[in-house]
Amino acid sequence: MFPDFFHHSVLLCATPFVSNSAIQSKAFFSLLPLRRDFSSASPATTAAATLFPPEMAAVASEETLRRTLAEKQAAVDSQAEAVRKLKTAGADKPEIEAAIEALKALKIESASAVKRLQAVVGGNGGSSGDREAFRQSVVNTLERRLFYIASFKIYRGVAGLYDYGPPGCAVKSNVLSFWRQHFVLEENMLEVDCPCVTPEIVLKASGHVEKFTDLMVKDDKTGACYRADHLLKDYCKDKLEKDVTLSAEKAAELKHVLAVLDDLSAAELGAKLKEYGITAPDTKNPLSDPYPFNLMFQTSIGPSGLSPGYMRPETAQGIFVNFKDLYYYNGNRLPFAAAQIGQAFRNEISPRQGLLRVREFTLAEIEHFVDPEDKSHSKFVDVADLEFLMFPRELQMAGESAKPMVLGEAVRKGTVNNETLGYFIGRVYLFLTHLGIDKERLRFRQHLPNEMAHYAADCWDAEIECTYGWIECVGIADRSAYDLRAHTEKSGVPLVAHEKFPEPREIEKLIITPSKKELGLAFKGNQKMVVEALEAMNERDALEMKAALESKGEVDFQVCTLGKSVTMTKNMVSISIEKKKEHQRVFTPSVIEPSFGIGRIIYCLFEHCFYTRPSKSEDEQLNVFRFPPLVAPIKCTVFPLIKSQKFDDTAKIISRSLTAAGISHIIDITGTSIGRRYARTDEIGVPFAVTIDSTSTVTIRERDSKEQIRVSIDEVASVVKEVTDGLSTWADIMWRFPTHSATHADED
Amino acid sequence: MFPDFFHHSVLLCATPFVSNSAIQSKAFFSLLPLRRDFSSASPATTAAATLFPPEMAAVASEETLRRTLAEKQAAVDSQAEAVRKLKTAGADKPEIEAAIEALKALKIESASAVKRLQAVVGGNGGSSGDREAFRQSVVNTLERRLFYIASFKIYRGVAGLYDYGPPGCAVKSNVLSFWRQHFVLEENMLEVDCPCVTPEIVLKASGHVEKFTDLMVKDDKTGACYRADHLLKDYCKDKLEKDVTLSAEKAAELKHVLAVLDDLSAAELGAKLKEYGITAPDTKNPLSDPYPFNLMFQTSIGPSGLSPGYMRPETAQGIFVNFKDLYYYNGNRLPFAAAQIGQAFRNEISPRQGLLRVREFTLAEIEHFVDPEDKSHSKFVDVADLEFLMFPRELQMAGESAKPMVLGEAVRKGTVNNETLGYFIGRVYLFLTHLGIDKERLRFRQHLPNEMAHYAADCWDAEIECTYGWIECVGIADRSAYDLRAHTEKSGVPLVAHEKFPEPREIEKLIITPSKKELGLAFKGNQKMVVEALEAMNERDALEMKAALESKGEVDFQVCTLGKSVTMTKNMVSISIEKKKEHQRVFTPSVIEPSFGIGRIIYCLFEHCFYTRPSKSEDEQLNVFRFPPLVAPIKCTVFPLIKSQKFDDTAKIISRSLTAAGISHIIDITGTSIGRRYARTDEIGVPFAVTIDSTSTVTIRERDSKEQIRVSIDEVASVVKEVTDGLSTWADIMWRFPTHSATHADED
Repeated sequence: MFPDFFHHSVLLCATPFVSNSAIQSKAFFSLLPLRRDFSSASPATTAAATLFPPEMAAVASEETLRRTLAEKQAAVDSQAEAVRKLKTAGADKPEIEAAIEALKALKIESASAVKRLQAVVGGNGGSSGDREAFRQSVVNTLERRLFYIASFKIYRGVAGLYDYGPPGCAVKSNVLSFWRQHFVLEENMLEVDCPCVTPEIVLKASGHVEKFTDLMVKDDKTGACYRADHLLKDYCKDKLEKDVTLSAEKAAELKHVLAVLDDLSAAELGAKLKEYGITAPDTKNPLSDPYPFNLMFQTSIGPSGLSPGYMRPETAQGIFVNFKDLYYYNGNRLPFAAAQIGQAFRNEISPRQGLLRVREFTLAEIEHFVDPEDKSHSKFVDVADLEFLMFPRELQMAGESAKPMVLGEAVRKGTVNNETLGYFIGRVYLFLTHLGIDKERLRFRQHLPNEMAHYAADCWDAEIECTYGWIECVGIADRSAYDLRAHTEKSGVPLVAHEKFPEPREIEKLIITPSKKELGLAFKGNQKMVVEALEAMNERDALEMKAALESKGEVDFQVCTLGKSVTMTKNMVSISIEKKKEHQRVFTPSVIEPSFGIGRIIYCLFEHCFYTRPSKSEDEQLNVFRFPPLVAPIKCTVFPLIKSQKFDDTAKIISRSLTAAGISHIIDITGTSIGRRYARTDEIGVPFAVTIDSTSTVTIRERDSKEQIRVSIDEVASVVKEVTDGLSTWADIMWRFPTHSATHADED
Repeated sequence: MFPDFFHHSVLLCATPFVSNSAIQSKAFFSLLPLRRDFSSASPATTAAATLFPPEMAAVASEETLRRTLAEKQAAVDSQAEAVRKLKTAGADKPEIEAAIEALKALKIESASAVKRLQAVVGGNGGSSGDREAFRQSVVNTLERRLFYIASFKIYRGVAGLYDYGPPGCAVKSNVLSFWRQHFVLEENMLEVDCPCVTPEIVLKASGHVEKFTDLMVKDDKTGACYRADHLLKDYCKDKLEKDVTLSAEKAAELKHVLAVLDDLSAAELGAKLKEYGITAPDTKNPLSDPYPFNLMFQTSIGPSGLSPGYMRPETAQGIFVNFKDLYYYNGNRLPFAAAQIGQAFRNEISPRQGLLRVREFTLAEIEHFVDPEDKSHSKFVDVADLEFLMFPRELQMAGESAKPMVLGEAVRKGTVNNETLGYFIGRVYLFLTHLGIDKERLRFRQHLPNEMAHYAADCWDAEIECTYGWIECVGIADRSAYDLRAHTEKSGVPLVAHEKFPEPREIEKLIITPSKKELGLAFKGNQKMVVEALEAMNERDALEMKAALESKGEVDFQVCTLGKSVTMTKNMVSISIEKKKEHQRVFTPSVIEPSFGIGRIIYCLFEHCFYTRPSKSEDEQLNVFRFPPLVAPIKCTVFPLIKSQKFDDTAKIISRSLTAAGISHIIDITGTSIGRRYARTDEIGVPFAVTIDSTSTVTIRERDSKEQIRVSIDEVASVVKEVTDGLSTWADIMWRFPTHSATHADED
């Protein structure tokens, strides 16, 4: 594995921001959704502490508040001491009383400083309680109406596993259909469907077997497992939020720890846990040292027990290993995109954050293969005028917020690396907003240098704000040639593209020939790493080395994988430029990968679509999901106004015409009041309700406006279809049909 | 596990056909597709040898042929001996020559008898070569056009794992969409989506942990694994097909072995392997004794290593464990159906039969919950008039073939157990034939008594004939209350339904109270099984026992789980009928389960849709898939007739209108001849091709008839949509537009 891993990573040295930990962490992998930890207010807090992401804007005032509080506290202490002294000294009663009054005043000031500090550290000025309450309403409704069910509930469930119940399943199926329409069909992508069971060799090549780990600690006595970074994070956040006596210096230290949390090695994490005396949360027992736990579900393929396999942690590898066939299928032409929708699995150590961090989830991934020398996109013009919230690296590092930017501008200025990446950012924006994601709570955040894998050219995450903070829901990464190269090396099958030249071309080629014998004599066991570092030099570095060797006879050479520089002499390597005639160019395509965490998108959608409104009698709050018809689990309900055979028969006629038109619907013939029945369907987000109050015409009610129109029975299906298919808006429809005022006795 | 398993199985004794092995075999489980082995010509050969399935109709003539051959061979031997004797005795040359002539004639007769026998045992009168050749053409086309790809091919693949490439993936997605439309939407089913990772306890309750096994043998030296029954089957089939010297008696024995193969215990299988001297096929090494290998992929949930889990072997359990919530969601009313589409996993010992027996596959399952006392179906009338091939138990046992039957008749006569089962048989028939399955090669076969689990009321398989024989693609089983009871017992959560009576009812209730003390004294360790058998008695048996105990003081009692009868005395059990007032009926619903092996249906569809036709020049055979538009991976191709900017622009305009109409299509602007391009899309089953030979009107060609019409550019999308959506037939369209005669220079 080692050489496969670092062969291309020697270039790393050139990029000062990129730390080795970026290679070792999961940021290394394709398919970002669900990977990193989002329970901090923003992933930007993972940036090095020397940077100032926007969430740190509150830092200054918090620090001031801590200092003020410390001063007030000191004043209280000294005044209390003064009171004691006066009492001991038998001072005058009025004098003592005055001193006590002063103490009281100081205590009030101090208490108020505590409150102000708590408001700041409690997050967003004390609104965290509101956020929690809102989340609780959403989640209660989702669970009660079976959008979600804790899997295997009758057996007390399994952490991190959830079922989609009927309305959730319908929403998911609608989201996936639209994804297929918006991406696969619209772009003629090659969709594939590969198994979840994956042999070890594939995930060795991708690096998952060795590197797809989280650091874990165990309760020394019970064996209970925890994520080491979570314990440290909880400790720091808890201290910062609740310990008002914390000194400003200590607070700054804890913040620094939070900021660099993802970059800490096992040893560093272990040292911090020890330093802070952190113990197992449930038992207070001591903890083991942190050690890596691989997050893949392992299994065995076939009966021999000799073929280890894993449940895939992402769907992308299934596409990469098929590159050759897919390239051929596409007529050996670039660019083209392949896509896959499917289950992925991550055996989280201790899943938290409910529906956002789960052990099995649906991914939809696109791998767009492109000539690295031409990343233009013929349809970029279609999205260039879009304007939405973007959060480039510079803004994050300057401590500013995301800003509306025109996509075409962002690409033209180089903020976004290339047109193809920009095109997908635009398409993702359209996809999410069509689903019903609020554009004010959607931003595209560029990865900071230390978040990106060394080979990546540029990465942007579509982040959606919900009660958990800004959640990464789609990762859009230009991964350059990394993945195809990794599989080429491991399998021995060249995953490359060809460009035939109309005429043969004379080409200058850099030839680097390390002398393994000399290098072996000089560097013994390190020879291999030196050879790899030499072979991976770019042209400029190689020619500089050649010149230096020729003039000085020896030169210092930095070998990243050794973490030091070595002295090269002339006999150790020969470097030359040769001229060759070539008939074609053979190259490894770059891949641009938009990767969608479907479950996360759906959860955020639930939050963005949820609202409450008072019932007509104003004695209760009614829940509503304002799903667009595209997403709504059921498009239409049919209610006979009163129990009657005639109306039930009419309902059946309407139901048949809706089925024929392919419109999902339900009939509710319960005797409940019509208002109750409306409330019940509003709560699962059904956009239209047909109420049967006669056998010739019926009313159609729109969920959010509660407006009603009257249409004849044989028009119902076509009207509902027109508006659910998006061919007409409700406003158009309102124009064409008579309005019906809600006189039903018991509406709302 | 033991009591859970046999508690309800004591009734078994009443049904003479049901052997214990049916409980122990995988026939025990829900979800029949992909379970049993289909490499024999028909599953009916698994019937006990005393029955005569239709495939055995050839037996008589085969036996006659074997006898004839043995006689002819004996005649040859005796004549050869005569010749030798004549030569030794120095007989006359003419006499010897005459004897030799006679010998030659006998040898010719014998050789002809060998040929006739070979033709019969080779299957379907020697057509097996044709079948193989046909399959090879289909599979070659499927692989070349990337309908399928061997998974992880660049790493030399993994047996039993396949990818769907772009056209295969599109077909699958179309089949699943139609399934959702035809079943879930049309019937208002409650669709759910549960994880694949499943904790052990769930699969213990269902019985999979203990019983979902195949018998395996290992090569004593290399450790290579084989399915024991496969080796025995291969040996028997090989002998029967190739060894013409086999005596009729031996042949009958081998056939008997094939017939009872699925019912053999590990010991019986082992004995047969020894008796026939069967060794490891690859090395001829000796084999281990057969032992059970569990077919589930095992894994571990969470990091502790203490929570075993499995990749689900079927999707049904996810529905059963949610019964309570789903029943509530449906307003506590029966009947209702829940459905699930998802991946399932079976770690086959050594997968064979290519795409039909795989280790990971997509299932679509329905669990229709119904009151066991009322299995009528309100929509049965909609399917009652359908007529198709049915193959009830009686026909199989009489050695006859499947016959066309009217579904309504079959239910009325009791051939099909109840209306709900019948309704689903009809709906499955409609589903499969709409997809393009040939109704002449589709039959509904009833399970024989020894194939059915003891609790099942009735089971029918939709079997589709392909080159592998009749393949079970959909299982439709009335599983009674088994699954809900199993989870009720294991979880302690009652999965039951309630029927409230309008008025309280007086009810006679059978009360069986075993005296555990007396039974313990009498039967020691067997006490538990006796208690369970007593408690499971039906009313008639219990009252008979009561009467016998009262008159005679003791009675013999058959305890199935002990495999013997015991003597019961009066003090061991009290039996009475008590009267009670009840306000509601609490009962475990029956479940009727149609379970679809999607991959198998798709493979059979590929075979049924494939044909070849000569090219215009008749110098080659062209492949065509006659997919209905519903299923076709791409609905339409767009070809500019010649390379021209004008035509390319027109192609783009048409492409945009097709995309807007949601019609999947591709543009082929390669310079190849139009005939080549038609052939290329015929080969992936694209039903319509739009050829651009002007910028105002274009032609549309239908794949199978090769007929063309001319339409204006702005009508293309609506015409194609109309006919792919099934709103019009091609014949309708042909009426409305001018026909275009294929004058394109190079149209086939």
